[in-house]
Amino acid sequence: MTLDTVLARIDDQLPQALDRLMDLLRIPSISTDPAFKPDCARAADWLVADLQSLGFDASARPTPGHPMVVAHGGTGGPHLLFYGHYDVQPVDPLSLWDRDPFDPELQDSPKGKVIRARGASDDKGQLMTFLEALRAWKAVHGALPCRLTIFLEGEEESGSPSLIPFLKGNADELKAEIALICDTGLFQDTAPAIVTMLRGLLGEELTLRAATKDLHSGMYGGAAQNPIRVLSRILAGMHDATGRITIPQFYDGVSELPDAIRSQWQALAFDHARFLGDVGLSVPAGEQDRTPLEMIWSRPTAEINGIWGGYTGDGFKTVLPAEAHAKVSFRLVGDQDPEALRRHFRAWVEAQLPADCSVEWKAHGNSPAGVMAIDNPAFEAARAALGEEWGRAAAYVGCGGSIPIAGYFKTYLGMDAMLLGFGRDDDQIHSPNEKYDLECFHKGIRSWARLLAKLA
Amino acid sequence: MTLDTVLARIDDQLPQALDRLMDLLRIPSISTDPAFKPDCARAADWLVADLQSLGFDASARPTPGHPMVVAHGGTGGPHLLFYGHYDVQPVDPLSLWDRDPFDPELQDSPKGKVIRARGASDDKGQLMTFLEALRAWKAVHGALPCRLTIFLEGEEESGSPSLIPFLKGNADELKAEIALICDTGLFQDTAPAIVTMLRGLLGEELTLRAATKDLHSGMYGGAAQNPIRVLSRILAGMHDATGRITIPQFYDGVSELPDAIRSQWQALAFDHARFLGDVGLSVPAGEQDRTPLEMIWSRPTAEINGIWGGYTGDGFKTVLPAEAHAKVSFRLVGDQDPEALRRHFRAWVEAQLPADCSVEWKAHGNSPAGVMAIDNPAFEAARAALGEEWGRAAAYVGCGGSIPIAGYFKTYLGMDAMLLGFGRDDDQIHSPNEKYDLECFHKGIRSWARLLAKLA
Repeated sequence: MTLDTVLARIDDQLPQALDRLMDLLRIPSISTDPAFKPDCARAADWLVADLQSLGFDASARPTPGHPMVVAHGGTGGPHLLFYGHYDVQPVDPLSLWDRDPFDPELQDSPKGKVIRARGASDDKGQLMTFLEALRAWKAVHGALPCRLTIFLEGEEESGSPSLIPFLKGNADELKAEIALICDTGLFQDTAPAIVTMLRGLLGEELTLRAATKDLHSGMYGGAAQNPIRVLSRILAGMHDATGRITIPQFYDGVSELPDAIRSQWQALAFDHARFLGDVGLSVPAGEQDRTPLEMIWSRPTAEINGIWGGYTGDGFKTVLPAEAHAKVSFRLVGDQDPEALRRHFRAWVEAQLPADCSVEWKAHGNSPAGVMAIDNPAFEAARAALGEEWGRAAAYVGCGGSIPIAGYFKTYLGMDAMLLGFGRDDDQIHSPNEKYDLECFHKGIRSWARLLAKLA
Repeated sequence: MTLDTVLARIDDQLPQALDRLMDLLRIPSISTDPAFKPDCARAADWLVADLQSLGFDASARPTPGHPMVVAHGGTGGPHLLFYGHYDVQPVDPLSLWDRDPFDPELQDSPKGKVIRARGASDDKGQLMTFLEALRAWKAVHGALPCRLTIFLEGEEESGSPSLIPFLKGNADELKAEIALICDTGLFQDTAPAIVTMLRGLLGEELTLRAATKDLHSGMYGGAAQNPIRVLSRILAGMHDATGRITIPQFYDGVSELPDAIRSQWQALAFDHARFLGDVGLSVPAGEQDRTPLEMIWSRPTAEINGIWGGYTGDGFKTVLPAEAHAKVSFRLVGDQDPEALRRHFRAWVEAQLPADCSVEWKAHGNSPAGVMAIDNPAFEAARAALGEEWGRAAAYVGCGGSIPIAGYFKTYLGMDAMLLGFGRDDDQIHSPNEKYDLECFHKGIRSWARLLAKLA
């Protein structure tokens, strides 16, 4: 079988693949610091050259920030887009690193060999898994497996300021049948995982006002409205005794988990006790009829992220403040509409205001949940390929946070995305001593080869 | 009648009484600022000399701070102690004064003549009403009306640091049958009033903790306990829908207002709409079956004076904080026991903590309510005297705040106190352009003469 030949080639060439990754890791492409702008350009050029060596028509495309690497190659089969990012996080505090963050080294660790360097896991090591799979494929087959577009960003760690304009300006060129995004991890370090649900986010800030000035509680206490009390009462009412959110129409667009996904999640045997115990907790605080995994992956939330009002310094002041404030956010799932929810939340708060109280709103960000199109056959192909490589069934998992790129591909290119990656929880991304397990790099490359064999 | 002679003497000698008050007002006895320490001593000496001119055995008694003026004189009748304070508030911002705060002047105003100077109302003008009444009495009768102790403090505006030690160290010397305290005002500027109820105060600060560190709401939102949510829920539960406080045993020691007092308060025709409207409010926020006057004078409160937790800066951060904080205070009435309430409050909060949450307490001040002994015949005598002078029934009123001296006299000397005074709401005490109405000074002196005639 030719796949076996490709996999054997990957195994055989692992030292050379590692050398190439080391070369890329030596370039300090910190996107947020203008001092490293030339290094970002150098990393982009390095990738362009590498892609050209694979037969791609590749170029570094200028933006107001750092360049986008775009490459086209291959013919036939499905048209796939691969996304990764070549920029990395800053390295401070440098004193906490065991060695120069940009002098990569293969090190022994209790759990096996690790590649130690800034960007080893996030995202240079991960993006190179795909390129190395293509390299082996081409060496065996003499050609790329199918029509491919490679899209590598250089501003992911600094807010992606150029991304949306670039997607809009190059939509026809970039649109493919599906985007493969390699910037996520294994599930609990062992199980291959495809992220199919990303929670959205809605942020709101409110200021409640009552009296025209701060009052003395000796003079007015009892008779005057206290906006902290009103704010507490309203916010306390966001959840009922079972943890369910009480805002009207809040659950519009929230679906129950499909049985197939639920059974996959159960098979993951998520260690709820460890998940909570790691941060000093023991009892899940969300909806009582849900597991913690459901709570963080598939259920929406309402959280108070900040609250303040009255006297907060040392000592005591018997003030009845004129105003009180809170920042509230909602994690969204399924088809929840952020702007509709904003309206419902505001109306719900305003309906509860007592006489003499007013509210002022400040809108913070909103993004809908990301729900991947798992009916796209690439998903089941990926699940099979990953399961074969890792010897363990791959699962469709959720992600409690946001990875905006998947939503942007959908919004601006009308393209589905599939997120899979090989990071581990202890990779120390964004922290000192970042690493990527050699096993993850190796099996990551092999995983992509298996998937390409199925898709091509 | 000799009282008429005394009153006539007061009327006749008003210009001289005013001159004496002006002399005292020229001394900048700001107790909180060490630069004015010699001035405080000078004010004490001025009063000692004036009391000696009335035949008192008077002296300025040293303390670690400013001197206490103590004087004894007269014989027979009840032994009365009179309390006032000769120190004044600072004058900043000086630019807001229309003239030198220590260059007193009798000015015309739309409402009549006013004495303009720092301390004119608080408390030099008020304390001189009593001394001028004694002066007129002595001029007519040749002797003081009864056995008298005069006790004038010089640190009232700076926290009275020497007061309790001085009371303890001189209890036998200072104890009298009743203390007359002249540091309060007329009711709504017109009705003579005797303060018989002062609310007490209990302060508590609490920190709720859940996870061992701040968490990201993408990673943990829904599953992890949010201490702001817990704090809001608990604090929101301090009041039920009718405004009643729900803490168990909270109302222990709270009595209903006696009918006699209630009818006096009704007769005061308190302008609730103006009271609330002055600060932009219209609906009383306390217990729904109480009037605002009851709420602030005779009912206990639970107030959140400060709350903080999570991210409170600009923008937004989707943090689930590890802790949340609040400062809570209770205004106490009747026989409520502050330390018992502290225990009840803490137990009530702790019983509501969910799993994984802990609370840390910081105790702030506590003082019981002051309830004057209106069965002491001096009270009805004062009510009659005041009613005769002001042409309007005098009322027993409450005071929502604290005037600690009355409680100290009770605690350290076992002596009841009666608070009455002649200030008006627009006297600007503690503010620029303080004044005392000449009418208040004049009728205040006459009020004391009438009361002394009844008590002697």
